[in-house]
Amino acid sequence: MKGEPYLFLPGPTPVPERVARAMNRPMINHRGEEFKAILEDVVAGIKQIYRTSANLLIYPASGTGGLEAAVVNFISPGDKVLAVSIGIFGDRFASIAEAFGAEVEKIDFPWGTGADSQRIRERLEQDKDHRIKAVLITQNETSTGAYNDVKTIREAMGDHPALLMVDAVSGLAAIDLRMDEWRLDVVISGSQKAFMIPPGLSFMAFSDKAFQVYQKNTNTKYYWDLAEGLKYLRQGQTPFTPPISLYYGLREALQIMAEEGLENVIARHTAYRDMVRASLRAMGLRLLTEDRYASSAVTSVIAPPEIGANPIRKYMLDQFNIILAGGQQKLDNVIFRIGHLGYIRELDLLAVLAALEITLDHFDFSLDMGAGLKIAQKAILNMHKQ
Amino acid sequence: MKGEPYLFLPGPTPVPERVARAMNRPMINHRGEEFKAILEDVVAGIKQIYRTSANLLIYPASGTGGLEAAVVNFISPGDKVLAVSIGIFGDRFASIAEAFGAEVEKIDFPWGTGADSQRIRERLEQDKDHRIKAVLITQNETSTGAYNDVKTIREAMGDHPALLMVDAVSGLAAIDLRMDEWRLDVVISGSQKAFMIPPGLSFMAFSDKAFQVYQKNTNTKYYWDLAEGLKYLRQGQTPFTPPISLYYGLREALQIMAEEGLENVIARHTAYRDMVRASLRAMGLRLLTEDRYASSAVTSVIAPPEIGANPIRKYMLDQFNIILAGGQQKLDNVIFRIGHLGYIRELDLLAVLAALEITLDHFDFSLDMGAGLKIAQKAILNMHKQ
Repeated sequence: MKGEPYLFLPGPTPVPERVARAMNRPMINHRGEEFKAILEDVVAGIKQIYRTSANLLIYPASGTGGLEAAVVNFISPGDKVLAVSIGIFGDRFASIAEAFGAEVEKIDFPWGTGADSQRIRERLEQDKDHRIKAVLITQNETSTGAYNDVKTIREAMGDHPALLMVDAVSGLAAIDLRMDEWRLDVVISGSQKAFMIPPGLSFMAFSDKAFQVYQKNTNTKYYWDLAEGLKYLRQGQTPFTPPISLYYGLREALQIMAEEGLENVIARHTAYRDMVRASLRAMGLRLLTEDRYASSAVTSVIAPPEIGANPIRKYMLDQFNIILAGGQQKLDNVIFRIGHLGYIRELDLLAVLAALEITLDHFDFSLDMGAGLKIAQKAILNMHKQ
Repeated sequence: MKGEPYLFLPGPTPVPERVARAMNRPMINHRGEEFKAILEDVVAGIKQIYRTSANLLIYPASGTGGLEAAVVNFISPGDKVLAVSIGIFGDRFASIAEAFGAEVEKIDFPWGTGADSQRIRERLEQDKDHRIKAVLITQNETSTGAYNDVKTIREAMGDHPALLMVDAVSGLAAIDLRMDEWRLDVVISGSQKAFMIPPGLSFMAFSDKAFQVYQKNTNTKYYWDLAEGLKYLRQGQTPFTPPISLYYGLREALQIMAEEGLENVIARHTAYRDMVRASLRAMGLRLLTEDRYASSAVTSVIAPPEIGANPIRKYMLDQFNIILAGGQQKLDNVIFRIGHLGYIRELDLLAVLAALEITLDHFDFSLDMGAGLKIAQKAILNMHKQ
């Protein structure tokens, strides 16, 4: 039986039943004591995931809203920014900065790779008079399944005073990130990824250095203005009406993550990535990214060209109710993407790999049925031996 | 990650999200028009599953309540009944009849087999003066995973006037049953099996012949009295307060079953049985029942004696949050049981088989890892080719 969907997108990710239940509670006054306690709880919990003691605000917005908040608070019209892009979400961050008047210099790297920190180092070393005010980078590039080594990029910036602004929307808690230790200035993330709750919340943390930049910021802003956020946060409130159900869910999800332990959450995502990649290779499939760039959140698979990625996705949807992401723009029908972040059990991942083998067989792709599955099964065995 | 449980019991079975959502509605007046419409809907829907136009009542009770209702309405103290037992639930039906004053003659068949209809035929042929008033039979014996061929047993009864009373609690909609065509007199079933809703409702349908027997019944009854049920049903009500949420869920579940089609529901259960059995054999495991008796609802696996069934269950629960049933009474620690009825997707079943292989490996059971899985995968491939 087909049953309800298996959701294997790189966001939104499946919502645990505990979270769904927590969300299913009556509304409360968002200016009252109960909401205040929830807000304090979740801000503290998210800061642990960020590994930061910096200020952190929660916006009622999608991830892109968080990126816009970062731009309008920390970049002024006319500021020069260096936008590092390895795919569609890198492009988007650059576009937002451009829309709000920044002078954007873009460094593009081939889709499927991570940024070369050496090139960033060289560019900043050339910038003797510090015209570059910010470096924009995507931690995990959802569109390709490659990730940027944020720590090394930060180190490559040396003493250049530009802010490092990190779009960690789809990577946070799937890939290691240490905001304070690595001296990141602005980090944005979203609720519908490793946080395991539905879309609708975006998180932005910012360093003291970023706050000083904010104080001289001349951009137009209202909804995103961090001063309002901070002012209300001190009273245990948000400036505008918060999506209360999502807060209920977030508190429960943070509790689940705390029970597993952040190190274990990240180790699990890494183990899933390795399992999925080994299994896909055993099926005879090619992957878009090399191992050294491979994201723990999502894996891009190059479909056999004689089949195409979209027929594979359609068959898996029709026959198994499995939802996979396709490729975007020039990768449309070239790749499909298997999300393995958030609330995914290893046996569910194995089931999807089994269905993929069956699908490839359906399309007469030559494969040793079960070979990819056996690899996955052995990987699961190893996870449970540890 | 372990995540939420995989429920592979022979009841209660997983509840589809559609059903859970349907149940999550505010209460209504159970003496009002809205409930009347629901009651009429679900009674009509259950009758389709029973393949009957006979009277059918819904009790707020577990399956055993339905068995008791059958006994107290259709068996009078002193009546002789022939109770056919192939396991614990056959024994239970006999015990209830005994508790309510019947003179019970029991025919037992070895656990793991189905009843031999020839022996029933012979016994009834000896009963020249028709002292036997009812034959009690279990369609699906949950404790062993064997089933009785109810159609053949009915044929074996020939013209003997005894009622045939069928406990179809765990088998209905997983195994073919045609109440009218096969001339069954009383058929009992329950909500927490192939009906895919939580426990709490029991269904009892009865033929006109059974109703005539009821009219002369002398047993003590109140809650179970079918006359009350029929009287209220005519007004679109139930005699006592119904569990309204379960009715909401039942209406949705019947809709899901109608969308799949009853023939397909039964074919799915049969295909699952065959897949599970072939896969388990490929792992080198022994099964309790021969193929000819094998239930489509649940499969009993003989654990390797050097491991024992309960350590296997414990490991699967601890490591994978997979819930399997154990053996009961003399089968405790000898067998474990994999339920495959109700809302089970084939890929979930495959995941459980994968976990079982991993578990056997953990206990150093010699197996060709992946062999059982490959069989299951090929069976799924075949299901999707049809």
